[in-house]
Parts: sequence; C-alpha cells; structure tokens
Amino acid sequence: MPTTVSELDTILDTAVGASDAWARFTPAARADVLDAVADALDAQAETLIPLAREESHLLLGRLTGELKRTTFQLRLFGEILRDGGFLDARIDHADPAWPMGARPDLRRHLEPIGPVLVFAASNFPFAFSTIGGDSASALAAGNSVVLKAHSGHPKLTVATADVVRSALSEAGAPDGLFQVILGTDAGRSAVVDPRIKAAGFTGSIPGGRALFDLASSRPDPIPFYGELGSNNPVFVTATAAERSTAEIRDGFIGSFTLGAGQFCTKPGTFIIPADSDLATSLRSVALPDGAHLLNDRIVSGYAEVLGELKDDPRFTVLAEGSDPVSESPTPTLLRVSAEDMLADPRALQRECFGPTSVVVEYSSESQLVELAETFEGQLTATIFGEEGEDLDELVRVLAARAGRLLWRGWPTGVTVSYAQQHGGPYPATTAVGSTSVGTAAITRFLRPVAYQDFPQSMLPADLANANEWSAPRLVDGKRSEPRR
Amino acid sequence: MPTTVSELDTILDTAVGASDAWARFTPAARADVLDAVADALDAQAETLIPLAREESHLLLGRLTGELKRTTFQLRLFGEILRDGGFLDARIDHADPAWPMGARPDLRRHLEPIGPVLVFAASNFPFAFSTIGGDSASALAAGNSVVLKAHSGHPKLTVATADVVRSALSEAGAPDGLFQVILGTDAGRSAVVDPRIKAAGFTGSIPGGRALFDLASSRPDPIPFYGELGSNNPVFVTATAAERSTAEIRDGFIGSFTLGAGQFCTKPGTFIIPADSDLATSLRSVALPDGAHLLNDRIVSGYAEVLGELKDDPRFTVLAEGSDPVSESPTPTLLRVSAEDMLADPRALQRECFGPTSVVVEYSSESQLVELAETFEGQLTATIFGEEGEDLDELVRVLAARAGRLLWRGWPTGVTVSYAQQHGGPYPATTAVGSTSVGTAAITRFLRPVAYQDFPQSMLPADLANANEWSAPRLVDGKRSEPRR
Repeated sequence: MPTTVSELDTILDTAVGASDAWARFTPAARADVLDAVADALDAQAETLIPLAREESHLLLGRLTGELKRTTFQLRLFGEILRDGGFLDARIDHADPAWPMGARPDLRRHLEPIGPVLVFAASNFPFAFSTIGGDSASALAAGNSVVLKAHSGHPKLTVATADVVRSALSEAGAPDGLFQVILGTDAGRSAVVDPRIKAAGFTGSIPGGRALFDLASSRPDPIPFYGELGSNNPVFVTATAAERSTAEIRDGFIGSFTLGAGQFCTKPGTFIIPADSDLATSLRSVALPDGAHLLNDRIVSGYAEVLGELKDDPRFTVLAEGSDPVSESPTPTLLRVSAEDMLADPRALQRECFGPTSVVVEYSSESQLVELAETFEGQLTATIFGEEGEDLDELVRVLAARAGRLLWRGWPTGVTVSYAQQHGGPYPATTAVGSTSVGTAAITRFLRPVAYQDFPQSMLPADLANANEWSAPRLVDGKRSEPRR
Repeated sequence: MPTTVSELDTILDTAVGASDAWARFTPAARADVLDAVADALDAQAETLIPLAREESHLLLGRLTGELKRTTFQLRLFGEILRDGGFLDARIDHADPAWPMGARPDLRRHLEPIGPVLVFAASNFPFAFSTIGGDSASALAAGNSVVLKAHSGHPKLTVATADVVRSALSEAGAPDGLFQVILGTDAGRSAVVDPRIKAAGFTGSIPGGRALFDLASSRPDPIPFYGELGSNNPVFVTATAAERSTAEIRDGFIGSFTLGAGQFCTKPGTFIIPADSDLATSLRSVALPDGAHLLNDRIVSGYAEVLGELKDDPRFTVLAEGSDPVSESPTPTLLRVSAEDMLADPRALQRECFGPTSVVVEYSSESQLVELAETFEGQLTATIFGEEGEDLDELVRVLAARAGRLLWRGWPTGVTVSYAQQHGGPYPATTAVGSTSVGTAAITRFLRPVAYQDFPQSMLPADLANANEWSAPRLVDGKRSEPRR
C-alpha cells in the first residue's frame, strides 16, 4: 500500500521532531545506538536472510556477507563518532594582531543537516537498502531518516525496518527517528518537501536524474547525493595481456558475471590489445550459466538494452553463457573495435545492467589514452599494466574521470573503510565531491556552523575549551590531538 | 566589449590545458605562485585603489583594508597548501583480517576539480571580485580560473587582471591559468559548457538562482557555489536591551549603515523589546548622511525595494538620514510589529540591499524563538543576551538556519581565518555544506580520488609511503602527523 499524502505529512512532521531530538544526543551516545541496531540485525540474520533470498534471488553466501557488511558499517560509523574527527572542529582564538585586522574568537564545526530522505536500491537488499550506507551515515551524522522503500524486496524491507525500529526504541532513540515510506509518488513528494534537508539515492541514471532535478528545482534546493551509473572501464597494456593472459581473462569473467553483473562497479568495458592471446582466448571462453536477476524490471531492462546492443552492427557477440533462451538472461560478451568506440563513445558505452560486458580491441597502445578520454564520469577505472611502463598520462586522464583507480584488480567488491571512495563526476554521481561508501560518507549529511565570541557555557561541547568529547581540533591553524 | 562566442571557445580550451598543467604543480609550488600574486597586488596598491574609488564610490580606508584582506587571503591559502592538511590524505593498508572481509590497500586524497568559473561581485571590488576569495581558493586547489567580470568596475577589473596575469607569468604559472570574460551571455554560456567543472558566485538571489538552475540543468550537472542573500537577524533580550541600551543602539546603527549597507552580512532585521529604552531611543536616533552606492543598478534596486517597503502599511518609518531626496539614498530605519512579522515573514523579511534595516518590536520574550523560526537560511544570526539567560532553544533554532552565530557582536566584518564560516542554508547559499570565506573554502574546488593497490612509484606524493610533501594523513583510521 503506497504511503498516502496525509500519512506522509505526519511522517515528515515526526521526522523533524526526531531529528531535533537526535541531534542533541552526544556522538558517543549515537554510536551506542548504532551498535545496538547492528547487534539486533545480526541476531535476526536467520529471519532476514531467507527473506532476502526469496525476494532477490541472490545466493546465500553473498547475502550473509552483505548483512555482515551492513552491520560492520553501522559499527564503523560508531567508531568514527567516538573519535570525533568527523566534527572537523576548529578554534581560532581572538587575535588583535591577526594580519588582516583584529580577529574575534571563532569556533566552527559540523552539525546535523536535518531529516534525510534515503532511496533504497534493489541490488544490495541490505547494504544499499533499508539500513544500508546512506541510512547509516545519515543517522550517524545526527539526522532522522525517511526511507523510501524499494519495491523489489517489500517483505525484507518491512522485516528489516521492524528490527531497526525496535532496536532504536530499546536503545532510547527518539520516536520516529527511522520511518519508511512506500511508492513513487510519496518519494517524489518527499524530495520536494521543505522538511527534508538532503537526500541519498542509489539506482539508475534516469531515475536518479529525475529526483536530482526535483531536488534542485525546489524553492529551497537541497543536496541530492545520487549514485547513478558507471561503466568501470578496464585498460590492459600489451605486456600485461601477454604475461598474465589467463589471470586477467579469468579475473575479468569472474568480475563481470559476479552477482549476475548487478553491481554499479561491474567492469562494463574491457580494453585489450587486438591480436593478443587474451583477445583470442576470449573468442572461445566458457561463460558461467545464467542466474536469476533481481526482479522482473531488471530482467526486462537487461533484455531490452542487450537486444539493442546486439542489433548494432558495430558489436559482435564473442561469447554467451550456457542458456541463452532461459528467463534468466545469460552472460554475454560483446566485441567492438577501438576505432568504432572512438567514433561514437556515448552510444557504445551505454550501461547494460546485468551480466554483459564489452571487449574493445585496440590496434595501438597509443589508443589507450585516447579511449580513456572518451569516458564520462565513472565510479572506477582499472589498469592492468606492468610496473615500469610509462602510464602517467593514462593515470592522469582516468583520475580526472573516476573516483577510484585500481591497479591490477577488479572493481567489484567495494570495501568499507576510512580511505574508500565510491563516487565520481556525473553520471557516476550527482555530487562529485562526495562518497557513498566509507567513513567520509558522513560528511554529506552535515553542515558547518561557526560560533563567534560565544560564552563557554553556550558552546557545543567539542568547541568549548573543556572539550568534553575529546574531539581532535584545529586550534589557530594547528592540529591538536586530545589526550585520551 | 563582451566576449564573443569564438573568443569564449578559445578561452575555455586554454583553461583546460592550464588546469591540467597547474594540477601537476606541487602544493608548495602553487603557494609560491600565490605569494607572488599577493606581492604584485600589494606593490600596485597605488594604481589599483584609485581605480576602485572611482568606480565603486567606496572610501579610501575601506578599500585599503579590502586590498590588504585580498592579499592576506592569497598568502593564507599558501600556508594551507604548504601544510597539506587540505589534501585529507588517507591510507588504509591492506588488511586480510578486516572484519567485513579482506581489505585491499586503499589511498584517498583530494584532487583539483578542473576549470572553475568565478562570477565577480560588485560590493567588494577586490575581496569578492577579480582575485577575491573564489578565485584564490580555486587557484589554490589547483584549478584554472575563468573570471566573469562584474560590469560595476571594468577599469579596476582590467588593471587587477593585468597585475595577476603578469605575476603568474613571472612566477612560472601555466599560460591561461587566469582569464577574464565579459558580458552576461558569455557567463551563461560558460556555466553550461562541459569544460567548466565548478562555479563560484556572489550576488543577488535572482541572479544566482538563474545561474544555479543553468548549472544544475546541464547534461552533466556541476557544483554551483552561490552566495546569494541574507537578512542577518539580530535578537536582543529584554535584559540586554535594558543594560546596554546605548552600546547596542550605536553598534546597530554603525553596522547596518557601514559601507552604505552594501554587505551580505548587513543586519537587516533587528528584534528588540517593545516599550524598552532601546525601542524608544530608536524613534529619535540620528542616522548618518547618505553615501554614494556602488552603481546605478544598486541605486535603482535599493530605491525600488525601499519604496515598496515604505508603501506597505505594516511598516512605519522610524528614522531617515539627513538627505532623503538626494541621488544617494539615505539610511532608513523601518519598524514592524512582531505580530505582523509572524503573520507574513516572507514578505516582511525581504532583503533590501543598501542602508536600510527593519526594527521588529516584540511584546513578549517568548516571541524570540517564534520569530527565529520564521527565517529562511541565513549567513549569520546574532544574539544580544546576558550570560545565564536560558537561550538554548533560541541558539538551537538559529544554528539550524544560519552558518555563523554571533554573541553580542555585529555580523559585518567577516574575518578570513581557519574557523570562519560564510555560508548557510538556501537562500544564503546554494550549497549548504560549504563556505566562501576562510581556509575551508578550498574544499569546494577539490574532489576525492582513491587509488587501490597502486605501486608506490605511481602514487601521488602525499599518498606514497615516502610522503615527500609531509602531508598529515589518516593511516588505518589514526591521525598521523609528519615530522617536519
């Protein structure tokens, strides 16, 4: 049942009150609450995982790992909250001798932005859905969350949300800190509602762009953090292709068919030397069997795009999995020449969400940089080369286009850590300066506030001299680490 | 002469090449170049300041201080570049025991975003114009700048740009690192050109919103950092009004008429107790004489908005300066009741750019929080209270709406420092998470890039183990300060 207009109104009012109350929790108290949510999810794994299997067709091992990732992420944000570095606390003491003129006492840090609207994704029913990365980072930052459920896994959403809500309640979080809304209309209404202060999204380019446009056209535009689409090109030098033929071929097949190719980091373009053993071996490679895709919409979208690509005379089919006529679309490997790709990159780099990838065969290694220059914004770009090869220009061109560069590795499998970057220029994301994975994701849902000449008793704890939260601070331009 | 379409095309091509070359300078080398620009501007003060006086009608002391601020700002960004903290360098070593599963080696930092389009403002012909804060922070971040000149001070723009360009050239910066374009059409074309990767703007709400809408509607939307408009409300408690009547009154008159009220931080709403000595004394207060406004457009805009406010029967004129019929509009103080303000805040909080402010008289102190809740996003909000008064709720409501909160001070006069925050929710800015003044402004023109499993020799210097730039880093989640 979609959320009605009047239900949404009540939900958003509640979200405002809950956000205000939650923002007054200390970071360490918020960390304890996130830990409690993680514990509750882990304790309910045997209930949640079967629901996820039923609704997503994903494999048990994958889903077990994904839930582990999801609860780990909540606890890692807890660690960040206890550390306090995320506050970016800065103190400039009053300075009558400041070179441009006397300076007042100024103290600046980051505060919660307010209620956050999160759009769940279908392809990670735990890690990018109900209590996935966007929800975790928004809650950690001190905001309430309004979660627009994905229609692909309704039962899992309800069950996960129940676990989250009762864990929040038992841990003493404000009522209504985490609420769920259903239906496209409710999502569109919420993203333009003045009570929502930021939004996070993971999904398709058309869907994400439509919501970005709504958020940007509000009378009061808000930040819209959309992670949309990526081709994740892989560039292989002639030497690497020659020396590591089997390793690169097998790794590639494994990566683009992993999880039936339903990852935003699937290597969608594989750029290799023509007439190499690697190119030859791909003409007779055995691809894995087809696997169930997530849902009917993904199945039909995949079939449609793949059909259009196959109809394009510039593509030839190099290989297909064992069951090309099944309802579960089979893995497919297409081939195109570097010349064709250079001539019409937008059409030939179209994202095909599912187990398909495009092999681009180049005739000269000088085409690597030329090809790299044809790509729009990417989440990742990968180089298989040999140390000592002169790849500076290729790295430079790719670093200008992608958020994460890999050396001799595969882009699927995105760890959650301090240095992770999952973002990139449009259309990889709608917010090039941000990441949706890793601890830096918290910054998306914070905003800076400075206090000038405030009495000690009225300052936030991390900005007062006593520094009760033991936050690291920048004091008069110098980093100051608290004693703990 | 406006920049033609073909001139703009050449300028943008040049900007791309210059940005690529400049990005390869080390941060310390960029700092040396910024210092050289600052030195050259200081050396040309006697040429530049008279031009600024002629074109802006601002006073000598003000302009001398503003140029000092401008060159100080360039040198402060130099200090930030040499420090390296702005890079936000993070290293996660490979960790097979990472709780969610084996972790690769990941290294992340911030890199230049690419060519930045800067729209100059009229009210600070040095500090928010040609080589003002946006240009300085964009250059410091490692990007080329395309400066859309403001029509209000054309001779000063040409002279300043000449000094900047020759200083850049002598210091060895790439050709075309700093270029100027003229005319509204060129600005609008540039903001939608794919070669421009971010934009900075300081000016009016309608002008900034139109450009934000263009930037957001691009096929590839880019960050648009617009600083648009603010009312900068000041809240005075009954006790403070009673104990400090003259101090508060005189400070207020000085602040709203400073620089003929042409500051984005001018206190536009002054909320005081009715029937107080402060309220009474404002009915017979002497306002300063009128002063020349910046240019004809500002004069006519001021006259138009002030006329409409005066025609509104809810406003009464409390005081006017000495020359209400001159071409230079005179300072004006209007009065409105708290009840009227609460009933129709959008109309009665309209920004009037120039030496006018609105006194709101409240009948009960409980109205302070109610009034605070009526404000949209603000650059600043100020409280005059007494220590020990319970103002927590007022502070909380204002912190949710403003980027900088002041205690018993005046919002005009924005220092450049590490902890400064000049920003706020819309319409104060179009990017609530950012600041356009202070060292944190550099982050607007950077974007994160992570390197996974890269060989040491191929990593940026701040991410390689040797850390040649001595950047502070987050290593496996712990802050690590380099030996210097």
